[in-house]
Amino acid sequence: MRKIALFFLLAMPFTANAQLSNDDVHKYDHFNQSQYRNEIRIPGFDGYQTLKCDFHIHTVFSDGSVWPSVRVQEAWKEGLDAIAITDHIEYRPHKDIVVSDHNESYNIAKKEGDKLGFMVIKGAEITRSKPLGHLNALFISDANALDVDDPLQAIDIAEAQGAYIIWNHPGWPDNKSTFYPVHGDLIKAGKIDAYEAYNYMESYPLTFDWYAEYGIAPMANTDIHGPIDIDYAYGEGWIRPMTLVFATDRTEAALREALDAKRTLAFFHGTLVGDKEYLSKLVGASLETREVGERLEVTNISDITYKMTKGDDLYIFPAGKTVLIKAPKGTLDVENCFWGNGKKLQYRF
Amino acid sequence: MRKIALFFLLAMPFTANAQLSNDDVHKYDHFNQSQYRNEIRIPGFDGYQTLKCDFHIHTVFSDGSVWPSVRVQEAWKEGLDAIAITDHIEYRPHKDIVVSDHNESYNIAKKEGDKLGFMVIKGAEITRSKPLGHLNALFISDANALDVDDPLQAIDIAEAQGAYIIWNHPGWPDNKSTFYPVHGDLIKAGKIDAYEAYNYMESYPLTFDWYAEYGIAPMANTDIHGPIDIDYAYGEGWIRPMTLVFATDRTEAALREALDAKRTLAFFHGTLVGDKEYLSKLVGASLETREVGERLEVTNISDITYKMTKGDDLYIFPAGKTVLIKAPKGTLDVENCFWGNGKKLQYRF
Amino acid sequence: MRKIALFFLLAMPFTANAQLSNDDVHKYDHFNQSQYRNEIRIPGFDGYQTLKCDFHIHTVFSDGSVWPSVRVQEAWKEGLDAIAITDHIEYRPHKDIVVSDHNESYNIAKKEGDKLGFMVIKGAEITRSKPLGHLNALFISDANALDVDDPLQAIDIAEAQGAYIIWNHPGWPDNKSTFYPVHGDLIKAGKIDAYEAYNYMESYPLTFDWYAEYGIAPMANTDIHGPIDIDYAYGEGWIRPMTLVFATDRTEAALREALDAKRTLAFFHGTLVGDKEYLSKLVGASLETREVGERLEVTNISDITYKMTKGDDLYIFPAGKTVLIKAPKGTLDVENCFWGNGKKLQYRF
Amino acid sequence: MRKIALFFLLAMPFTANAQLSNDDVHKYDHFNQSQYRNEIRIPGFDGYQTLKCDFHIHTVFSDGSVWPSVRVQEAWKEGLDAIAITDHIEYRPHKDIVVSDHNESYNIAKKEGDKLGFMVIKGAEITRSKPLGHLNALFISDANALDVDDPLQAIDIAEAQGAYIIWNHPGWPDNKSTFYPVHGDLIKAGKIDAYEAYNYMESYPLTFDWYAEYGIAPMANTDIHGPIDIDYAYGEGWIRPMTLVFATDRTEAALREALDAKRTLAFFHGTLVGDKEYLSKLVGASLETREVGERLEVTNISDITYKMTKGDDLYIFPAGKTVLIKAPKGTLDVENCFWGNGKKLQYRF
Repeated sequence: MRKIALFFLLAMPFTANAQLSNDDVHKYDHFNQSQYRNEIRIPGFDGYQTLKCDFHIHTVFSDGSVWPSVRVQEAWKEGLDAIAITDHIEYRPHKDIVVSDHNESYNIAKKEGDKLGFMVIKGAEITRSKPLGHLNALFISDANALDVDDPLQAIDIAEAQGAYIIWNHPGWPDNKSTFYPVHGDLIKAGKIDAYEAYNYMESYPLTFDWYAEYGIAPMANTDIHGPIDIDYAYGEGWIRPMTLVFATDRTEAALREALDAKRTLAFFHGTLVGDKEYLSKLVGASLETREVGERLEVTNISDITYKMTKGDDLYIFPAGKTVLIKAPKGTLDVENCFWGNGKKLQYRF
Repeated sequence: MRKIALFFLLAMPFTANAQLSNDDVHKYDHFNQSQYRNEIRIPGFDGYQTLKCDFHIHTVFSDGSVWPSVRVQEAWKEGLDAIAITDHIEYRPHKDIVVSDHNESYNIAKKEGDKLGFMVIKGAEITRSKPLGHLNALFISDANALDVDDPLQAIDIAEAQGAYIIWNHPGWPDNKSTFYPVHGDLIKAGKIDAYEAYNYMESYPLTFDWYAEYGIAPMANTDIHGPIDIDYAYGEGWIRPMTLVFATDRTEAALREALDAKRTLAFFHGTLVGDKEYLSKLVGASLETREVGERLEVTNISDITYKMTKGDDLYIFPAGKTVLIKAPKGTLDVENCFWGNGKKLQYRF
Repeated sequence: MRKIALFFLLAMPFTANAQLSNDDVHKYDHFNQSQYRNEIRIPGFDGYQTLKCDFHIHTVFSDGSVWPSVRVQEAWKEGLDAIAITDHIEYRPHKDIVVSDHNESYNIAKKEGDKLGFMVIKGAEITRSKPLGHLNALFISDANALDVDDPLQAIDIAEAQGAYIIWNHPGWPDNKSTFYPVHGDLIKAGKIDAYEAYNYMESYPLTFDWYAEYGIAPMANTDIHGPIDIDYAYGEGWIRPMTLVFATDRTEAALREALDAKRTLAFFHGTLVGDKEYLSKLVGASLETREVGERLEVTNISDITYKMTKGDDLYIFPAGKTVLIKAPKGTLDVENCFWGNGKKLQYRF
Repeated sequence: MRKIALFFLLAMPFTANAQLSNDDVHKYDHFNQSQYRNEIRIPGFDGYQTLKCDFHIHTVFSDGSVWPSVRVQEAWKEGLDAIAITDHIEYRPHKDIVVSDHNESYNIAKKEGDKLGFMVIKGAEITRSKPLGHLNALFISDANALDVDDPLQAIDIAEAQGAYIIWNHPGWPDNKSTFYPVHGDLIKAGKIDAYEAYNYMESYPLTFDWYAEYGIAPMANTDIHGPIDIDYAYGEGWIRPMTLVFATDRTEAALREALDAKRTLAFFHGTLVGDKEYLSKLVGASLETREVGERLEVTNISDITYKMTKGDDLYIFPAGKTVLIKAPKGTLDVENCFWGNGKKLQYRF
């Protein structure tokens, strides 16, 4: 009979590192970066805290390339507050090797999330060609039930489970952000709650108006398939797309309430997209001011760099830094805050 | 007659950057790093805020190599709250070229400080060989008056001006941290208020006990002579020695009150030295905890990494990061917090 | 019938990025870090080039958590030259879900390697409790044949396939680097060719002597299970353990020849372990010198920082930087180059 | 009599660091960044090496704010090969305090350069309002002789000393890059040899054509007044403007020969300006290629990132990294290499 030593799957350390250093073994465990979680500093406002979320994520159970537990470890480490696992119902290229139903990937991720005190939302991606395109159903109870031929029926089944529906990457794969009648119908029927203004490595400027026009919540999600660090290189200061959610608490219930109330902003590549009022309040919560003689000292306490202009004047407020300016009169254009296509936030100090 | 265009000495920009980009000129002004001040995140406690200070600094007016205004620009940019200009009274190797009295370097620096809303303390270094060694007199009104043969007389003159006296680098230049009778006499007479546990690139472990033994305040100062970034390379994550002062406000009066009350810690190379109680409160203010099942999530909101041990167990709490640990029972040794030579802070979560 | 858009698994871009930026879509593809390969600068010597290799790697096909193609993408991006896929024969905790034989993980990785022009070596880990422990068989042709009860028989089968055998992590999991009789027998029989002086996050100082004593080649491998960047954080300047192989060419044949000739050094955490001569030649190839008056300008063209001492004198030669020193007389101890336990390389400029 | 301990001005360490660590003193000398010189990797071609130079630099002896020795330490540390000290003849706002003739600043810098094996060129800035503007005279023997009322006479005196004349910042301070008749006359008479396409934080696109039109050598210089790191923040990856000179050797004679032959390129903010042929050869020397199947592996061995386009296709070749592309057919536009205003280098692999 084979004698095999005990093994453990890679796991976050939950206890202290061992300080062993002798001729037999010298341990460098405390260099293991998996145990250190970054903090992404984005303030809240109006009594809400800002949750950093990614609601579009794949694993080996559909066409991704990592085990579901990895998704939680990555997001925990990067400093997010919640993710959704949204493997395709219909597209599973590894299915001859990875043999499973549609709920397994969430179950594995959820178990890891519970260990880390990290929120994992159950989801699935209903996947069709355009005009309908791809839709994520979040907060579902049984992904297997969505495996039906008619995608509108799949949506209804998800809705019956209490789903929150996201219209994914409207401009993919044909580079056209077309709003088809079917989307109008679904929104009217309350069956599309949100949409992706940013997905992976692209944005859809035409959609920046959709919060104002249709009342659906803007999101920025990764749609990540490989390990997150291969593409986004967080260590080099580059962070993934994320959906900012303004919630009363860091709980799943509060997250859902905030999503239903459409209190979100899409954030990627230093740019924020969404409701004018939320943009304004977030900028205001980020920038603290102090008068120095006739000048204004502005401290940006957030990890978001703001860039403003007024005519030929350019103001940069780098993340986590302080600048000293002559107080500008009137409003400035915030060059990285959009409440519509080409519509920049007007901000007044 | 010569026609000369208007010139300006290098100065921090106080207005917006120009957005000029045409065939004649393209401006990259917003890349000028001089206008961006870092924020050093160190929380306060008991209603005090933590001021980051450097009380030992030279310029071309003694044996340094930069103009006094540079000292303010450097410290403002790095995120300090106050500096003292402490040129040597007795040692001025450039004096054949740099012709001036002893007050000029402060006057130049103070003018720059006022522009930036940055505190500059007037000081001077009384400079003798051991046993007395070097002493900084801060908060003086006239440095010229200190230019006398007898250093004890110089101290008295400084005291008459309301000075706060620091015993500089006790272990330099002979690599011996000897406490001579003269220092005992001066402390007893209230004429030494503080001392350097850290100076430039060295520390003096024997002196770590002096707060407890003699009631003089521990400091970490740079004694910088060249540009600060040549030696300390802040951009690469390496910060200068600094004296942390726990003050009611960010004003010169509050700073002085806190110094008189000896509410300081010396901070360099990731290590803190000083009063047990201040150490404990600073660690407590830095580490926020949340229970996750049977574990403890610890978020370090400060820019100081804490390293703790308990037997063979090693706990690292990196600056600005979060870790998840099995809650340790009893007290831990904080490996980078000393209240005496070899005496580590005991900390309990 | 379901209409599904075409999908693609995450893949390295092999063509140019699209410059699309219109109202429908704005692409940030050139920010995708997956397409940029680092170069690790380690010079060769004696006509050999230095190949950077990792010969111990897991995937979801045993107890790892990523798809095999990910291993190639990670290693290509980090700047390695070759990896081996070495999934456990005996330990496959996901086997109810991941249904496959023992060759599949290599096949998937190899296909990715061919696309990128990257060497992937076929391997497997023969996994038993101590005394035998774990052994990697590299350069095998059929991993399925190794799935037998008797590990010594498995070794013989591997040998018959032309295998190169590595004794993995001698000090794990009991923190004892015991050399058992079975290892002596296997070495004598030519059935152990190499061993791990470093594995994952630990080293085994006692084994540093084994090249000199037993003629087996020292290695540093990751034994990685999760995504490499979660643990090692390359982006923050921290690189994985790697085995340096001094080969005539960057081909599989040249790699094998060099391994058979034991021209390797183990490299991790800034420390090199192995043959005295190779250490000395690598240091010599890394440090270029130029005389400046009575001083020596030393330029370290490698990505390895060398630290040397002579009595109380300390010399640091940072990776990629130049220093100017008074030329030291006689030999120096190289503090990060070991040819045995506690045996530091002696180096003379 | 005053007893004063021996003092030393800040100086680069030329010997080893002391390894002292006892209760009296603990030294961190090896952390002193002043002793580590960066290497800027820019290859040469045609048997020339690429010298990185800054030919426009101020000190406290005119309107700068650092001592001349600092200029050498900064440039040595950043990895430059040569600098010129070019204090204003006419503008010396500190002159009531800094009392000296016009040669002193060079003499101090030269002494420091000799210690470090670093080239320091003697220069001075002849300073007038437009139309003439400012001109640097390099390789002069006596700056005092240039202190005359008529600037054209000052130029003739410099020429008689063998000067090399640079027309500084043609677009400053009026944001107009006007080419006045006086400049045409001086060029025709061989009295202007070079000009600044980049100065400090700005460029002058109209002047990019001047190498082709007038045969004067393009330069990028800092015109730095404060410490270099305050403005350019090298530690954060941002490097100063520099003039690349293609010389047979790293000597002052070879530098002068190369300057006389106009073998220069201006380099700032990732952009190169100058002769088409030098641009093409530098790109070629930077990019090494290897065929991988039908693809091309391109390794950029330089510290300059190249960005190329062909129609909608975008190719990024990051500094020090490797990419794998489908070999482009025909020529590409190099987006960061200009041989005239709006005229991009055409490059063919």
